[in-house]
Amino acid sequence: MKLCALLGITYPIVQGGMIWASGPALAAAVSNAGGLGLLGSGSMTPESFTAALVETRRLTDRPFGVNVPLLYSHAGEVLDLALAAGVRLFFTSAGNPAKTTPRLKAAGATVVHVVSTPRLAKKCQDCGCDAVVAEGFEAGGHNGRDELTTLVLVPQVVDAVTIPVLAAGGIGDGRGLAAALSLGASGVQLGSRFAACRESGLHERFKQAIVAAAPEDTRLILRKLVPVRCLRNAFVERILQAEERGASGEELLTLLGRQRSRLGMLEGELEEGELEIGQISGLLRDLPTAGEIVTALVRDYERVRGSLPVLHA
Amino acid sequence: MKLCALLGITYPIVQGGMIWASGPALAAAVSNAGGLGLLGSGSMTPESFTAALVETRRLTDRPFGVNVPLLYSHAGEVLDLALAAGVRLFFTSAGNPAKTTPRLKAAGATVVHVVSTPRLAKKCQDCGCDAVVAEGFEAGGHNGRDELTTLVLVPQVVDAVTIPVLAAGGIGDGRGLAAALSLGASGVQLGSRFAACRESGLHERFKQAIVAAAPEDTRLILRKLVPVRCLRNAFVERILQAEERGASGEELLTLLGRQRSRLGMLEGELEEGELEIGQISGLLRDLPTAGEIVTALVRDYERVRGSLPVLHA
Repeated sequence: MKLCALLGITYPIVQGGMIWASGPALAAAVSNAGGLGLLGSGSMTPESFTAALVETRRLTDRPFGVNVPLLYSHAGEVLDLALAAGVRLFFTSAGNPAKTTPRLKAAGATVVHVVSTPRLAKKCQDCGCDAVVAEGFEAGGHNGRDELTTLVLVPQVVDAVTIPVLAAGGIGDGRGLAAALSLGASGVQLGSRFAACRESGLHERFKQAIVAAAPEDTRLILRKLVPVRCLRNAFVERILQAEERGASGEELLTLLGRQRSRLGMLEGELEEGELEIGQISGLLRDLPTAGEIVTALVRDYERVRGSLPVLHA
Repeated sequence: MKLCALLGITYPIVQGGMIWASGPALAAAVSNAGGLGLLGSGSMTPESFTAALVETRRLTDRPFGVNVPLLYSHAGEVLDLALAAGVRLFFTSAGNPAKTTPRLKAAGATVVHVVSTPRLAKKCQDCGCDAVVAEGFEAGGHNGRDELTTLVLVPQVVDAVTIPVLAAGGIGDGRGLAAALSLGASGVQLGSRFAACRESGLHERFKQAIVAAAPEDTRLILRKLVPVRCLRNAFVERILQAEERGASGEELLTLLGRQRSRLGMLEGELEEGELEIGQISGLLRDLPTAGEIVTALVRDYERVRGSLPVLHA
């Protein structure tokens, strides 16, 4: 497949570069299993990011990439550090790819940007991106404003561009992988599924909460600021109540405070922390290794592919 | 397929019983093409419903069904009229299936209920429903409160019940059909795609607005009352602004007024009417016949099925 050749991987399965979850252990395990692991730089300082690059290289000799949210204050520094350390696979998100892609391409890198509309996908192609991740409303963490779901978004992005499209948001098993490829995606990026695995950097209590979650247990909050999908808890209920009475962005920022994702996702404070996770958490019931996840995805995809019914009369 | 046998159809494709759109011409055309047409009783009086049953029977000798929203004041009367007229395929929605299903089953009918969570699907199975429609957040019209998308909802409903599951919401072409069957659905129910077709009862101006819509052009409004997905227009913007400032349910009801869906969908008033439609409208670019839609769905599904890549190494 074109996408696998582009990324240097065996299976068209990318692990999302999630804050707190996506450190060296997870990224290396996914790459070692034939997928693409990503370091999530969004929760790293430039110093810890550099250390993570060294550690990941120690744990795998396969390709891996880095996710860089472009709106973060130290994004430029992180991109420079990664380039200097030899990284040539960049997944960028949450910002304007036209500002960073030309520089990364000039350095010989492969650049993939995360989009939430077909229009932004076209813009990515126009500024030189090699592929896009089309991420739907059901995804965990930060989320597009137009609320297009993966099922609706992916075929429209596929129709809008000629570069490969990865589907993200709502994919948790081989059935989801088969659905994504049916929609015309060349591959998938999975967040929640790899967040709930042995090598993920999340606090053990949060991992247990993910596999215990019911299908209805996530909510999209902070639509007036930057929308983010989280597991429901005391913090989320307070935000939802404030939003229901029409709280201003300023008021919501005060309620949000600082370092809530660290509190919840890294330190395991389940009621007051911000627990970013996707809707598909309702489907997840176990905490396997990343390698077991990749193997099961491919096996179950093949089972689905082989059993789709013939419909012509 | 079990579902096709249950419903007496050739292809596992059901046309949603939409208000204003789903009259005799549309339902008969879909049934004549090998799918299942549904009359949408939600916008009919008992008198016009009886006339529609007679007319549909004149236009097709294939099976067709009726959609009955159980929360409507005349739902009981409509169910009685349908049974008396010989209808034996019921798609019920928006209400408690435990109250109506036993009576319909006792009369020898097949009953399918529309659900937005796996929990409600289980309840449907327990009260005797023959199948469920699992309808996601991207669907047009009235919508579940938990905002589960089709991609996330369908596999979890499939895992929760043993009766057949139809996927609905966000499906507009053969790629979407293949995605739905990949997720474990036995069939699909399409609303928007059949709303935008020659035989649909919608006003011609609304049909043209659907095929002209951009991917970002629908919004879910009235989350505090009964959430409903509509095409953006002056009416929707007013509601969104009111919601942003925390308007009460009472205030929203006043802004909504009465007969807005009739004004928009039947009479073609595009700015002040309520234009119920799904997110997938962004994908729709033409107004074919219902028969052409069914043929294209099956043809494109087969193309997708035959071209899914082999993933094992």
